[in-house]
Amino acid sequence: MTNSLLPVKDAHRQAFNAINTPDRLLLGPGPSNAHPTVLEALSRTPIGHLDPLYVELMGEVQELLRYAWQTDNRLTLPMSGTGSAAMEATLANTVEPGDTVLVAVKGYFGLRLADMAGRYRATVKTIEKPWGEWFSLEELEAALIEHKPAILALVHAETSTGVCQPMDGVGDLCRKHDCLLLLDTVTSLGGVPLYIDEWKVDLAYSCSQKGLSCPPGLGPFTMGPRAEAKMATRSGKVPNWYLDVSLLNQYWGSDRVYHHTAPVNMNFGMREALRLLAEEGLDQAWARHRRNAERLWSGLERQGLSMHVPEELRLPTLTTVRIPDGVDGKAFSQHLLNTHGIEVGGGLGSLAGKIWRIGLMGYNSTPENVDRLLNLFETELPRFSGSVAAAA
Amino acid sequence: MTNSLLPVKDAHRQAFNAINTPDRLLLGPGPSNAHPTVLEALSRTPIGHLDPLYVELMGEVQELLRYAWQTDNRLTLPMSGTGSAAMEATLANTVEPGDTVLVAVKGYFGLRLADMAGRYRATVKTIEKPWGEWFSLEELEAALIEHKPAILALVHAETSTGVCQPMDGVGDLCRKHDCLLLLDTVTSLGGVPLYIDEWKVDLAYSCSQKGLSCPPGLGPFTMGPRAEAKMATRSGKVPNWYLDVSLLNQYWGSDRVYHHTAPVNMNFGMREALRLLAEEGLDQAWARHRRNAERLWSGLERQGLSMHVPEELRLPTLTTVRIPDGVDGKAFSQHLLNTHGIEVGGGLGSLAGKIWRIGLMGYNSTPENVDRLLNLFETELPRFSGSVAAAA
Repeated sequence: MTNSLLPVKDAHRQAFNAINTPDRLLLGPGPSNAHPTVLEALSRTPIGHLDPLYVELMGEVQELLRYAWQTDNRLTLPMSGTGSAAMEATLANTVEPGDTVLVAVKGYFGLRLADMAGRYRATVKTIEKPWGEWFSLEELEAALIEHKPAILALVHAETSTGVCQPMDGVGDLCRKHDCLLLLDTVTSLGGVPLYIDEWKVDLAYSCSQKGLSCPPGLGPFTMGPRAEAKMATRSGKVPNWYLDVSLLNQYWGSDRVYHHTAPVNMNFGMREALRLLAEEGLDQAWARHRRNAERLWSGLERQGLSMHVPEELRLPTLTTVRIPDGVDGKAFSQHLLNTHGIEVGGGLGSLAGKIWRIGLMGYNSTPENVDRLLNLFETELPRFSGSVAAAA
Repeated sequence: MTNSLLPVKDAHRQAFNAINTPDRLLLGPGPSNAHPTVLEALSRTPIGHLDPLYVELMGEVQELLRYAWQTDNRLTLPMSGTGSAAMEATLANTVEPGDTVLVAVKGYFGLRLADMAGRYRATVKTIEKPWGEWFSLEELEAALIEHKPAILALVHAETSTGVCQPMDGVGDLCRKHDCLLLLDTVTSLGGVPLYIDEWKVDLAYSCSQKGLSCPPGLGPFTMGPRAEAKMATRSGKVPNWYLDVSLLNQYWGSDRVYHHTAPVNMNFGMREALRLLAEEGLDQAWARHRRNAERLWSGLERQGLSMHVPEELRLPTLTTVRIPDGVDGKAFSQHLLNTHGIEVGGGLGSLAGKIWRIGLMGYNSTPENVDRLLNLFETELPRFSGSVAAAA
């Protein structure tokens, strides 16, 4: 029994040129541009995932993530996947078959949570609001009373609609009705006021490529003591090896037992991204996002455009702008991308064709970027006015 | 109902210095050093995961992966996680509760496959060999007859032992006994002769940080038509959202439907890594790995050291060297790391304390690296001789 050498086939041996991607300005729903210091860190020589220097860096990443999230949670770490992997980790570790998971759906990412929870054999219940609205405490409490869930899953910053869900009182409601509070903070971490511990959030996840100014590839995850307690009493193993926090904790905790080979370069970048955020200060970063978003909103409104979400619950990181009647929104955003190198997003689901999604996140939240975009809306958009009717 | 502003706590706001990791030479079991061109690509400005230019790059990555793996499989793509995520994807998509999965265990990664398969509610059967041995066709066939599995999972290149499992005839056996062949190629892709289609492999996975000279963070995955057919007839959803190939195929296939935000910068690096491999040519890369490994083996043998695996089944990418009696192997590898900046691995499981693991993978497989290491073994190892006895 051997390994015979066979002829190598060249069918798929394409001779491509060296990579030559352009420098875009990413003002869509994410990824956003990364900070130059973060990009430099990504290109450092890798070190081993059990190297004492890497182990030290892991501790730094965890500590800075706790600051960014305003939590003391021991189990705070970046999952070695994108935000969706971290989303799945919150459910995979805590849901047992038959548990009721209540998902408050007010956009695309609520639907994703419901899909995922079902795969872990939860009994999934949903309450829904039109895309662009949010839930009141009364609505949430009525649903908690009706469904008696083990977990309430809620999206803080809905990337598909631009709504910032009010959080005052939600954590207390969940404790009163004895359920865990699971919060999607993908489009809020680093850019929008967010207090995991004060809000009594038990499980949360985010991504690297928005408020943190790092490329996509890591999924910040945090789990509080009440969620840990639920995980500890589960019968049988977590039905997902890669995202199993009990195993990951042996690597990220003090034991440093090998689990998987960490994406070390992405963590180099994450470490620098979080360091820069701590250097700026959370309050300052939040205020900067707010200031630049308001500059965008007032500029767009001066041009006669209207926002999809009322100002008091508008996300500073992601603005949804209504596409005016008669304008082919997709043609305009393609024009911005192809002619001006600026990415702006379109609508998803029930908002497809109805809105643009403009992100001002992390490194990209600057008055210069706002003015550049406003100027293009002012000078170029009129050319697309009537483009739908003209095409018909 | 609002979002109140609260005071920001500075408990975890550490003021760390800018990142300052050293340039190590990584000659352990991985990660290995990345090619400088790959590291440069990682630090490019991100582009959107639905940008037409990114979509084009995805196609290039897929095509070059097919070349590296010698397969025409449509479903060939890098999972947005490390090699372990791709490992899990092979099982998550194809195992249905109650399916028998037979794992041929001859090292650490066989055990991991068995653990994962159980989490997908397979009936897991194992056959085992001591760490450092391999399976004969007769042993595999006897187990297939006894257990009648739906899937046989086998590790081609066992990173924990340095054994290259002979593959001639294994694919035919699996077809004869009507089971899928799942192959771990983590430490073989790009460095060891490997023919997915000729070997009739139905499912395989690998990593980015070894033979491909890219940092860790992506998990190449491929699935052939027989595995696709099994997945297509499964009842219910894949019990893992992030790794669900039916969803991923809508993004990586021609539809380009959004699934998750791809780790675009890691894919920039992967694209360049695969392009460089195609430029060199697979035969040439395999021959280079073989040549440099032989240089290492004969050099170590001249110094009186012995290899753990017989030469005919020794991996050229990963060499397991027996630690001589009386030598504190860990003290020596710590000395190499701390004084000379060279990482060499230790043994896992039953081989802990008994072997060193020396990797010569991808960009690191050069005669210069071999000679540098041989020189250190020659000049420094004698100082560690008798170190165990001395410490006792």
